[in-house]
Amino acid sequence: MNHSVIRYILVNVILFEGVFMIPSIIVALIYGEKEGFTLAAVMAACIAFGFIGRCFKPKSTTFYAKEGFVTVALAWMIMSIIGAIPFYVTGSIPNYIDAVFETMSGFTTSGGTILTDVEHLSKSIQFWRLFTHWLGGMGVLVLILAILPLSGSYNLYLMKAESAGPSVGKFVPKIKDTAKILYSIYLGITIIEIIALCITGLPLYDAMTLTFSTVGTGGFGLLNDSIGSYSMTTGCVIIVFMLICSINFNLYFLLLKGKIKDVFKSEELRLFFIIVIVATLAVFFNIRKLYSGTTESLYHSLFQVASIISTTGFSTVDFNRWPDFSKNVLIIITLIGACAGSTGGGFKVSRVLILYKSIKNELYTLVHPRAVKKVHVDGKILSSSLIHSVGIYLAIYVIIFGISCILLSLDGYLNFESVFTSVAANLNNVGPGFNLVGPMDGYAKLSYFSKIVLIFDMLIGRLELIPVLILFTPRTWKKLD
Amino acid sequence: MNHSVIRYILVNVILFEGVFMIPSIIVALIYGEKEGFTLAAVMAACIAFGFIGRCFKPKSTTFYAKEGFVTVALAWMIMSIIGAIPFYVTGSIPNYIDAVFETMSGFTTSGGTILTDVEHLSKSIQFWRLFTHWLGGMGVLVLILAILPLSGSYNLYLMKAESAGPSVGKFVPKIKDTAKILYSIYLGITIIEIIALCITGLPLYDAMTLTFSTVGTGGFGLLNDSIGSYSMTTGCVIIVFMLICSINFNLYFLLLKGKIKDVFKSEELRLFFIIVIVATLAVFFNIRKLYSGTTESLYHSLFQVASIISTTGFSTVDFNRWPDFSKNVLIIITLIGACAGSTGGGFKVSRVLILYKSIKNELYTLVHPRAVKKVHVDGKILSSSLIHSVGIYLAIYVIIFGISCILLSLDGYLNFESVFTSVAANLNNVGPGFNLVGPMDGYAKLSYFSKIVLIFDMLIGRLELIPVLILFTPRTWKKLD
Repeated sequence: MNHSVIRYILVNVILFEGVFMIPSIIVALIYGEKEGFTLAAVMAACIAFGFIGRCFKPKSTTFYAKEGFVTVALAWMIMSIIGAIPFYVTGSIPNYIDAVFETMSGFTTSGGTILTDVEHLSKSIQFWRLFTHWLGGMGVLVLILAILPLSGSYNLYLMKAESAGPSVGKFVPKIKDTAKILYSIYLGITIIEIIALCITGLPLYDAMTLTFSTVGTGGFGLLNDSIGSYSMTTGCVIIVFMLICSINFNLYFLLLKGKIKDVFKSEELRLFFIIVIVATLAVFFNIRKLYSGTTESLYHSLFQVASIISTTGFSTVDFNRWPDFSKNVLIIITLIGACAGSTGGGFKVSRVLILYKSIKNELYTLVHPRAVKKVHVDGKILSSSLIHSVGIYLAIYVIIFGISCILLSLDGYLNFESVFTSVAANLNNVGPGFNLVGPMDGYAKLSYFSKIVLIFDMLIGRLELIPVLILFTPRTWKKLD
Repeated sequence: MNHSVIRYILVNVILFEGVFMIPSIIVALIYGEKEGFTLAAVMAACIAFGFIGRCFKPKSTTFYAKEGFVTVALAWMIMSIIGAIPFYVTGSIPNYIDAVFETMSGFTTSGGTILTDVEHLSKSIQFWRLFTHWLGGMGVLVLILAILPLSGSYNLYLMKAESAGPSVGKFVPKIKDTAKILYSIYLGITIIEIIALCITGLPLYDAMTLTFSTVGTGGFGLLNDSIGSYSMTTGCVIIVFMLICSINFNLYFLLLKGKIKDVFKSEELRLFFIIVIVATLAVFFNIRKLYSGTTESLYHSLFQVASIISTTGFSTVDFNRWPDFSKNVLIIITLIGACAGSTGGGFKVSRVLILYKSIKNELYTLVHPRAVKKVHVDGKILSSSLIHSVGIYLAIYVIIFGISCILLSLDGYLNFESVFTSVAANLNNVGPGFNLVGPMDGYAKLSYFSKIVLIFDMLIGRLELIPVLILFTPRTWKKLD
């Protein structure tokens, strides 16, 4: 393990975290909030620490997959630990573990909150809270890669570790350029949503912050009832952008290059929309009598399905009170999540697609033992090692899910449904669960032990399991390896 | 698809089902019960139908994997449909769907019941109810193979389809002999338990019927409180035999051949006992204050862990009232289940072992991309197709689990915990779940739609997913295939 290069990159991460606080400081200046001093102090400390740390260049530039995984896992932990300081020092969140929970929920774009009243936060702290969604959505190291003059094997392994999905794309030969293109597309979508939300009548501050939360598929809101108080027009804009950001960003690159046919050929995209439509209709028929009209029922159904499959976690109503059937449909799409290569989390539609096709293939092979048939996605043959790794991914996912449930059941406050949906919602970075941890309840009443378990789940879910596992495998740290 | 040979085997299954009713008829004779007439009539009809059907020999003896899967799936469905008739006609279970649920629960050795009072059943009907556990435990087609003068490829494919586990063993070159050896071991264990239970003071009838339920890892009981009214000595005998029947029967064959070292080398066996010990201690420390002494707490902990990991489902106390932590530990071992090649159900310890080793291997390969490392179990290299099929198995399992939960949530009676644990308990053939379907509640109050879903889950779980899926795949029935 090359410690010095890991240290060097982490120092840069801290430096950039300081830089990322600048917009919030500007907000504090505009609104004349004293929280600006705290943010400025943390920013200054991060930048100073970063610049000093950067003086100590790494002894060796050896950087392989192992270093990539460990760096990414540590970077996300450090970001949350430092990002929590402004919440804690300003007294916005009086307990530091709560502050780390909120920040991890922000960076991992989960959106579950320990706050019982988000409307009392100052504008600048609220801005920082929602800006973490924007930063975490596309991946912080991807952003750093796009800016930082790092070169060589760093890029490849960091990007692989942070954007693990089975279809991580290399648009262009240089990883650095890929990172720049990704962030340009992301920035473009962000600006368009801000404008759209302003047109529906939202003030610029609200439009910006809600956009951060939407395009990062995060789910933190400005109001205690999430999106419930906004107009249906605003809600529809949010639906559109939640769905846009659940789609593989590769497809937007293809779109920009004029390859529209290739976009519509994407089997993951088609499956994603099939799931959205089927789930929306299932929920709609189940809840249609709860609301005054068809339009309203359809709106709430579509909003909630889009919010959950995109792993955002916004809500227009307390869907915790919906019938069990609708709730279970939402739990299933919580577990599925968004498309690979999007800002959304979860198990990913592409993995579901690969497993579904592999099952079909396996059944065919069992019936026709002598037939040789390969699994195809988008017209390409999938390698057996890819299929293998998706199966392994599922196994790891199930094991972590089970262990988390066991640990959470030590919390005297939670019942089974709350335990299960807490883990589902945090491991898949959706945010709100059901029963005692529904969209109107949050995670405030959980024990600190439970909160630490969920912090871990959010992190391991966002980084798609492997980096965190490798970080905590003793073998990784053995000298001989 | 060779329909005529499938028909021929199914006719034999019906004939044998008639023969299997003879012991219950003898019980009716001994106790002078009128239910004997019904049983005798059904028996006569089955045997007559069987003998007539056997006159029509199959046109062709072509028999491959596809025919094997379809035959096994159909055989188990037919057995339950016919086996339910005595319950229905005698009025013991007034509704036919309920009767099929009970019979499917019997043959699949699940042990979940729709009866609210099992003590009112007549001796002969009760005998039939518990005897289905014994028949289903080792597999009905395995038994028929051991007796019936079928030869050739039938044997191989039927046995493969009925005992699917990843380590299905061929002790001796002839499948027919393997079936005979398996049933001899099973019979030996049965006789020893009957004697042991008689020594602890149980009458012969009780000893026999409870033995059927134990060695088949079924879980139907004679009393409404399951094993709660028996002495601790009787309970301990049951613990021992539940555990004995959760172990791969291959190991007993090795034991008989004097290869004791090979038995203790079995990694699945070691993992199984590690899980039993860890789960028992976890439950014990969690519930130790609920009972009067350490011995009693330890007894209830071990009994419940052995009962659930063996997928029997007996209970000494209402473990539904235990704290959430213990309940979640029990839910996890419900999902794991017994060893492959045993009479127990569930996902199987060997699959957990294979997945665990594959995960370790995958993490190693990610960190050392150039290293080539194979997954070993019991000193043998596992083929990549075996590992692949275990991953696929998990994926199918999760999908069926999810769909079942969605369907059960349409039942207005069930809450989330009841839905989840109903599916877990039936898909893994354990029997009792938690909350509204706990060991003292049963499945009586569910809607008929929910019962049909669970009947399907019991069947698909017992046959390890594949046969039932292949039966219901339209492609299987296409002429061209």
